[in-house]
Amino acid sequence: MDCLIKDFAQHVGEVVTMKGWSYNVRSSGSIVFLQMRDGSGFTQAVVAKPTVSEEVWNAASRLTIESSAIVTGTVTKHPKQEGVYELQVTDVQPIQIAEEYPIGKKEHGPDFLFDHRDLYVRSKTPWAVLRIRDRVFLSIEQFFHEEGFIRFDTPIIQPTSCEDTTQLFTVDYYETPGYLSQSGQLYSEAGIMSFGKVYDFGPVFRAEKSKTRHHLSELWMMDAEMAFHDQTMNMDVQERLVKRMVKDVLEHCQEELKILERDTTILQKLVHEPFVHLKHAEAKRILKEEGLITKETYDDTYWQDDMSTEEEIALGNKYQLPVFIEDYPAQIKSFYMKRFVDAGGVLRARCADLIAPEEGREIVGGSQREESYEALKKEIVDRKYPLEKYEWYLNTRKYGSVPHSGFGLGLERTVRWICGVHHVRETIPFPRLLNRMEP
Amino acid sequence: MDCLIKDFAQHVGEVVTMKGWSYNVRSSGSIVFLQMRDGSGFTQAVVAKPTVSEEVWNAASRLTIESSAIVTGTVTKHPKQEGVYELQVTDVQPIQIAEEYPIGKKEHGPDFLFDHRDLYVRSKTPWAVLRIRDRVFLSIEQFFHEEGFIRFDTPIIQPTSCEDTTQLFTVDYYETPGYLSQSGQLYSEAGIMSFGKVYDFGPVFRAEKSKTRHHLSELWMMDAEMAFHDQTMNMDVQERLVKRMVKDVLEHCQEELKILERDTTILQKLVHEPFVHLKHAEAKRILKEEGLITKETYDDTYWQDDMSTEEEIALGNKYQLPVFIEDYPAQIKSFYMKRFVDAGGVLRARCADLIAPEEGREIVGGSQREESYEALKKEIVDRKYPLEKYEWYLNTRKYGSVPHSGFGLGLERTVRWICGVHHVRETIPFPRLLNRMEP
Repeated sequence: MDCLIKDFAQHVGEVVTMKGWSYNVRSSGSIVFLQMRDGSGFTQAVVAKPTVSEEVWNAASRLTIESSAIVTGTVTKHPKQEGVYELQVTDVQPIQIAEEYPIGKKEHGPDFLFDHRDLYVRSKTPWAVLRIRDRVFLSIEQFFHEEGFIRFDTPIIQPTSCEDTTQLFTVDYYETPGYLSQSGQLYSEAGIMSFGKVYDFGPVFRAEKSKTRHHLSELWMMDAEMAFHDQTMNMDVQERLVKRMVKDVLEHCQEELKILERDTTILQKLVHEPFVHLKHAEAKRILKEEGLITKETYDDTYWQDDMSTEEEIALGNKYQLPVFIEDYPAQIKSFYMKRFVDAGGVLRARCADLIAPEEGREIVGGSQREESYEALKKEIVDRKYPLEKYEWYLNTRKYGSVPHSGFGLGLERTVRWICGVHHVRETIPFPRLLNRMEP
Repeated sequence: MDCLIKDFAQHVGEVVTMKGWSYNVRSSGSIVFLQMRDGSGFTQAVVAKPTVSEEVWNAASRLTIESSAIVTGTVTKHPKQEGVYELQVTDVQPIQIAEEYPIGKKEHGPDFLFDHRDLYVRSKTPWAVLRIRDRVFLSIEQFFHEEGFIRFDTPIIQPTSCEDTTQLFTVDYYETPGYLSQSGQLYSEAGIMSFGKVYDFGPVFRAEKSKTRHHLSELWMMDAEMAFHDQTMNMDVQERLVKRMVKDVLEHCQEELKILERDTTILQKLVHEPFVHLKHAEAKRILKEEGLITKETYDDTYWQDDMSTEEEIALGNKYQLPVFIEDYPAQIKSFYMKRFVDAGGVLRARCADLIAPEEGREIVGGSQREESYEALKKEIVDRKYPLEKYEWYLNTRKYGSVPHSGFGLGLERTVRWICGVHHVRETIPFPRLLNRMEP
């Protein structure tokens, strides 16, 4: 009977057949230990010379690292390790004997590993990380459908940019320049006028000439947009979504988290505790007063600035929970955000970034949108954006404008945080970076 | 109490509040009929002058087509139409009064409608079609997760093309030319070596200079790839997937199908009946012998050719069920397909296209892949593809090659068929075509 490794626990004492690859091979006299994997999990297949035919023994002995084979045997419980199962082999059918495998004989640097990403993806860490990515993806799909959202796939090739034009990739669209999407948000805002609540989940592109562990040139972004939602309701949806994703990973990805040696204390805590809310000004004050960052002067710029990487990490460390930073100064935020003047006379955006603890940094950015046609148009003109390119977008405020909000969640940053891996390139099958378009 | 229109049936006799848009407004003396929509459905809100205050009456009278409003009233059953509910209005709060709406006063051509796609998306037909798209998307996600597949997002920006290089869009990738993905398949084949079964679902791009109702320049493609699956198992997965999608749409999208006036006889039938299987040669013979196509000469070319649009439609019409056309001549199929020589000495590919009935045309293409390193390399060299670009791909055959198969399903073609709409541009929020990149 064919059996996946993940299902071995239900077949102890039975003879089963697995199909997969030998990720390691050790032999010790009259025993060959085949470390096998089949995509669903990992197991040890034990071939004892006295118990098998000469043909089977020879077949087992031929297997090299990453050879493919069909292996039959009896499932047994590991004598010492709880929850571990092995195969006492009765038959081995090699499919293809692999050449000497380039990965694994010694420690490799990231350049080597990502030059061979097609092979590196088979290693345990990528296997675990990308399975967690898959689970996060599924959680997002389930969450939005349970909440009554409609998937609204916005275009990748766009005639203009949503915001910053310096980070755009240009594409030759039948001899006219087009741009790869940085965000589908403006399109999603048109979508809610038909569907009420929509989400969009696809690749977006950032031509960022930075080589940090936080940036990819091609990444997956989930954008949600909701009619008749103010910023408080918006943050509530975000908190429920993040809790749901983490809860699902904790429940379904125990083996993956173990492989990653992820301490899940904070993940388990945040599923049940309310997230922290701080105003931007308050966060800046706390960072200064508690000396959480390395800084000598706190001039006007400090109070008006975006949160730096160091500041985000410091706030995550302080609260050990996700933190909403609310009401940034309007001038450093996008043109479409709703504005208000705070008690101190500062023009602020009705927005929040959600900072993940444990160096997760910003994983979500959201805001209530400006719903006034006049105010939005003025902002576009003031910023010297090409008004004619935004005419269709302004229609959302001309024909039945409604209060609405939305947010974007970066999939790779979220997965990096949940997995506890260092570099965001680990969280996507074939990363695209400043210096990497291959394989 | 806030209530979505779709839930009115559970609140007959109760006072509820809905938030949405008036898609049409009629008045008849002392009654105003507000045709309201809220994203979840459509209803008629009846404002009777004698039963409301002057303020409410005036508010209702101010609403224009596509104005936004919050409307409160008692839910009633329509006196004559089964399953239809209305609102007997007690309060109307206009949010924004729309300017004169450009769509709907008269018949518009497709150019006008798609120039205003941001507004046209609110009309009933796009609402229904894109909600069915959403359901098909969800079915696909659920199906693959229930079957143990892992989502494996392949890169959009690729250094080379999978197959045909004439239909590629070029992107300026940090001053190096890159190409927008036509398919993630080759990457998915690397993926199965780690995960066993993977699927990939994202946008792909075809720079096709054709203006037919079958082509988009930007479309969504689902690619599945499975280790240890031969072509028979491959077709079985496809059949189950298509049945599942259609079953889900029939179950969850009754209102949408009604709006589209879709005759669901064949859809209902195919959920329970086995799909038709024909060999390519047999299909060609039937088309000729039964005179199903307009053709005068049947020379060698005829027997070696791909299926034309006319031939696909004819076969769909004949069988009134999805039809697998198997074993195409190898020369007209891709380099990675497994080959064999048939009884008549013709070199064929172990492949099948799945033709949907009712003019659905090809919705799925799949094949068993060539697993021999030598055979695959020879094919790449024979076709004069740049071998060095395929080295990483050939690794899948060098290190633990396994028999495997896969298929690709075009989302928009599938949705077009299920919805029974004419042009594929109706099935994606913002279509990208030869002459259209806006809005």
